[in-house]
Amino acid sequence: MAQNHVREAEKTAVTSPPSKASDSLGKITSKSGGSPPPNPEDDPKAPRFELWPAERSFSEVLMDKTMDTVGDLLLITRRTLRELPKRSRIRAQLRKLNNKGAKNGNAPLSLKSDKPIILVLGSGWGAHSLIKVIDTEKFEVLCVSPRNHFIFTPMLPSSAVGTVEFRSLLEPIRISNPFVTYIEAECEVLDVNRKLALCTSTFAYENGRKPQFEVAYDAVVVSVGEQTATFGVPGVMEHCYFLKEINDAVGLRRRVGQCFELAALPGTLEADRKKLLRFIVVGGGPTGVEFAGTLRDFVRGDLARKYPELMDDVEVVLLQSAQSILTQFSGGLQQRALDTFRKTGVAVRTGVRVIAVTQDQVVLEGGERLEYGVCVWSTGNAARPLVQSIAGAVPAQREALQGRNPAAAKLAVDPFLRIAGVRDAIALGDCSRLSGAPLPATAQVAGQQGAYVARMINKGYKLGTGGLDQPFPARWKESSDQEELEYFSKPFAFLSLGLMAYVGSDQAITQLEAGKASFSLAGYLSFLLWRSVYITKQVSTRNRILILFDWVKTRIFGRDLSIY
Amino acid sequence: MAQNHVREAEKTAVTSPPSKASDSLGKITSKSGGSPPPNPEDDPKAPRFELWPAERSFSEVLMDKTMDTVGDLLLITRRTLRELPKRSRIRAQLRKLNNKGAKNGNAPLSLKSDKPIILVLGSGWGAHSLIKVIDTEKFEVLCVSPRNHFIFTPMLPSSAVGTVEFRSLLEPIRISNPFVTYIEAECEVLDVNRKLALCTSTFAYENGRKPQFEVAYDAVVVSVGEQTATFGVPGVMEHCYFLKEINDAVGLRRRVGQCFELAALPGTLEADRKKLLRFIVVGGGPTGVEFAGTLRDFVRGDLARKYPELMDDVEVVLLQSAQSILTQFSGGLQQRALDTFRKTGVAVRTGVRVIAVTQDQVVLEGGERLEYGVCVWSTGNAARPLVQSIAGAVPAQREALQGRNPAAAKLAVDPFLRIAGVRDAIALGDCSRLSGAPLPATAQVAGQQGAYVARMINKGYKLGTGGLDQPFPARWKESSDQEELEYFSKPFAFLSLGLMAYVGSDQAITQLEAGKASFSLAGYLSFLLWRSVYITKQVSTRNRILILFDWVKTRIFGRDLSIY
Repeated sequence: MAQNHVREAEKTAVTSPPSKASDSLGKITSKSGGSPPPNPEDDPKAPRFELWPAERSFSEVLMDKTMDTVGDLLLITRRTLRELPKRSRIRAQLRKLNNKGAKNGNAPLSLKSDKPIILVLGSGWGAHSLIKVIDTEKFEVLCVSPRNHFIFTPMLPSSAVGTVEFRSLLEPIRISNPFVTYIEAECEVLDVNRKLALCTSTFAYENGRKPQFEVAYDAVVVSVGEQTATFGVPGVMEHCYFLKEINDAVGLRRRVGQCFELAALPGTLEADRKKLLRFIVVGGGPTGVEFAGTLRDFVRGDLARKYPELMDDVEVVLLQSAQSILTQFSGGLQQRALDTFRKTGVAVRTGVRVIAVTQDQVVLEGGERLEYGVCVWSTGNAARPLVQSIAGAVPAQREALQGRNPAAAKLAVDPFLRIAGVRDAIALGDCSRLSGAPLPATAQVAGQQGAYVARMINKGYKLGTGGLDQPFPARWKESSDQEELEYFSKPFAFLSLGLMAYVGSDQAITQLEAGKASFSLAGYLSFLLWRSVYITKQVSTRNRILILFDWVKTRIFGRDLSIY
Repeated sequence: MAQNHVREAEKTAVTSPPSKASDSLGKITSKSGGSPPPNPEDDPKAPRFELWPAERSFSEVLMDKTMDTVGDLLLITRRTLRELPKRSRIRAQLRKLNNKGAKNGNAPLSLKSDKPIILVLGSGWGAHSLIKVIDTEKFEVLCVSPRNHFIFTPMLPSSAVGTVEFRSLLEPIRISNPFVTYIEAECEVLDVNRKLALCTSTFAYENGRKPQFEVAYDAVVVSVGEQTATFGVPGVMEHCYFLKEINDAVGLRRRVGQCFELAALPGTLEADRKKLLRFIVVGGGPTGVEFAGTLRDFVRGDLARKYPELMDDVEVVLLQSAQSILTQFSGGLQQRALDTFRKTGVAVRTGVRVIAVTQDQVVLEGGERLEYGVCVWSTGNAARPLVQSIAGAVPAQREALQGRNPAAAKLAVDPFLRIAGVRDAIALGDCSRLSGAPLPATAQVAGQQGAYVARMINKGYKLGTGGLDQPFPARWKESSDQEELEYFSKPFAFLSLGLMAYVGSDQAITQLEAGKASFSLAGYLSFLLWRSVYITKQVSTRNRILILFDWVKTRIFGRDLSIY
């Protein structure tokens, strides 16, 4: 059945816009059609990277970002005022094509658009910020992702204990930009040579069939993020909870409630009670630390009032393989986090390695076994299969991998975030690695990258092929009669605004950065700053209002204890 | 393993309060201890039912309820001002007992309290209203229920499409009355002779073990409701969605979203699209009608904006076996509901019987087959196993059943809601049937019954044995030196306030009742009344605020489309 829906790549044709300047987003052909076209790849004057990383001052980058943000807001405002077409051309096409498909069974999926088709894979920080900023009047944007919403991931730990509700963290992609066509599916194979993406539906028909289809693109943005890394530790996938998707938080919240209900039953032996109420967090990064802190809040606040007789048995344990927690932060802030944990009763054990997880025990190197009720695994990320397959198939990527484990693969990108060795392809966020100057795998980086790429594309630059030895993205010079190319001159610059982590009991640690200057803050004031930043960083007014309401609700009524 | 936790009933002892007046909630013994005690059952003057149903005027009942409500509020206010004990005696006991249990493996669960122990089974409308009104200064209340929260069931259809959020409908039992001891378990066997309840935990240990335990009670309140009735139609349990528990609404909301995402995929054949987008509701009662109406709102509002290209294929079908829908309502209101459905495009088919449900088809009597994307089953209720077992074991109950199908069993109760033929036992709500004058199985009835029973018990009346031929509940006369019994004289009287149903498009139908007078209202004004009543009827300020916020949120931002 599924094969019927797989369109043959050969038949797929992308008709280009009738623009004089390009026959695809990537290739640049003659402006007038007469004289031989200057091609950036043959152009001896085309700029190429000689020095990298480029030195740019903090204030310069800050000024750029500010101007860009103003531009983005204007674009978004204009979009909001545009009336939504009752039926977009491309969606009507999808529908008509399918009808044809019904007749002859195997018709090619031939998308036609008067605009270049940009395929966005993913709906996380990078993809979402691109989708918000991309100019859908100029481009036909298709977003393919296995989840139909953006998640404000830094608040997943809060939602897992009910400080904020799950839906308050989400924004449906269809709402993020109503002019983008969203398709709920996962891209399994990206044919970078033929510029085709083979996708499989996330949901199945009642008989188990998952529809498959191919999409032809003019440019692709790979922003699929990473998956949880188990580092080969057996039992992690089967028994641990994670904090990556909203369902992880849903399951975790349910499980914590179940442990308390089981422990409160008459007939529960002391040993069982102690086991059920030991909550182990593996990983001392910001996510693990925030979860340990908020869980401790939940226990000391709401649960202590409802299950006072169980309080002596509750234990929150944070296991960290390194010698300290929150290694991204300065030593002083690390110490503040440890002090807060000591006061609130989160047991921190550093320098311990987990070698196995069974259904009710965490096994440490050296043989120690810790029984647990809930084990949260938050230690790091590994490459998704799609990224591994691209990294394995493209020579420039294989070279960049330098024999590292394919599970640790990231797509090597040049300073314009173009995938090295691939035409018309961008990679963003956690699944990418900036050649020469790798950036941290954070939401902040991915978000800035998404908007950066959208702006570059909006300005009409064709991506061309990625790589440090390739010419820069180019476009025809505006208001010039000469056939002359203009090259994009601004590589991506990350504006680091610093780091924050909530450690429980209305205490947070903040490390602000402004160029080379840095400034540390810890305690309640830092917590207020944390909240202000998280509210500001919400992707919409709707989410801002929901989160604020949740905070007020939690403060007044406490967290909901209903289990479902 | 589980057996270790089953306490032997013989060993279980309930120590009575050191009160002179009673050695259990049910038996009445001498006040002074000297002269032979008057026992209601031997008392020739003890009142017994001669005429039933009792004739009471509407205004009389209304006045009573008003006075009662004022009394309830005073009690709840007093409770709110009381400080919560850091560790209640009975919970500390449960804990200590368990420790003992750990040592010798099979110690009896011997709960001791200086107050009579009232065991409440269930956490629905009846149980919740009893728990709110019961005087926990006089009684030790244990609530055993497989779900740790009350659900505002009339709004489940709204929550299934996201008009209100799931948690806004819930109140955790531990919050409803913090002095009640809640245990997350299901009572499987009620030994009415030895006054013991055998319970099994809802949640299991990671190895699958579900703890079991027995609770000895002085009085029991059976308020377990009913389960979905399939009427023997094959495939219903496997393929249909219900609207009884919060997880039903959660699953339904997810499934509706999935159907739209699947239908929107490129490569979806027209036939598949039409199938996925046909939503069938079986049952034309208030729940089915409200779901069909709100689903239509969701489709015409939020989904039409996000999936405009799919709108022609959406179909909402309501199947009803009777010749009309909403048969509880007057003919005029039924017609109004049908008119609204005709205008908004809900297809109503009356007089059709479903004989089978397959994974993608509903089969009608006569052989017609309707393909569907989602099928919601909302046709009626059947007895839970616990109710069937009590009805089968007690002779008075078997008699009342009169050879009916045990699946239709309800516990026959006398006008004081005592279970006929059983000592110190009450049944409330849907799982009970009032002898002589059966009441509708609605939230309104159950809620009033719960509060009624709590007030009777609060006043110190001992229940005695239930049945029309039994003496009324009795207590020692206050301020009397004589050993004289006082009998409770007010049988339960249901104050019907009328019926309402939302039919979509901001239209509702209302049938108000005041004694013999009745008054009909339909349309937008009725919808505003529906909303006011639903807000007023919320069980707490917290829920009221949450629901109001949800309504405002939905009005401004629409319903969330994220699927998880």
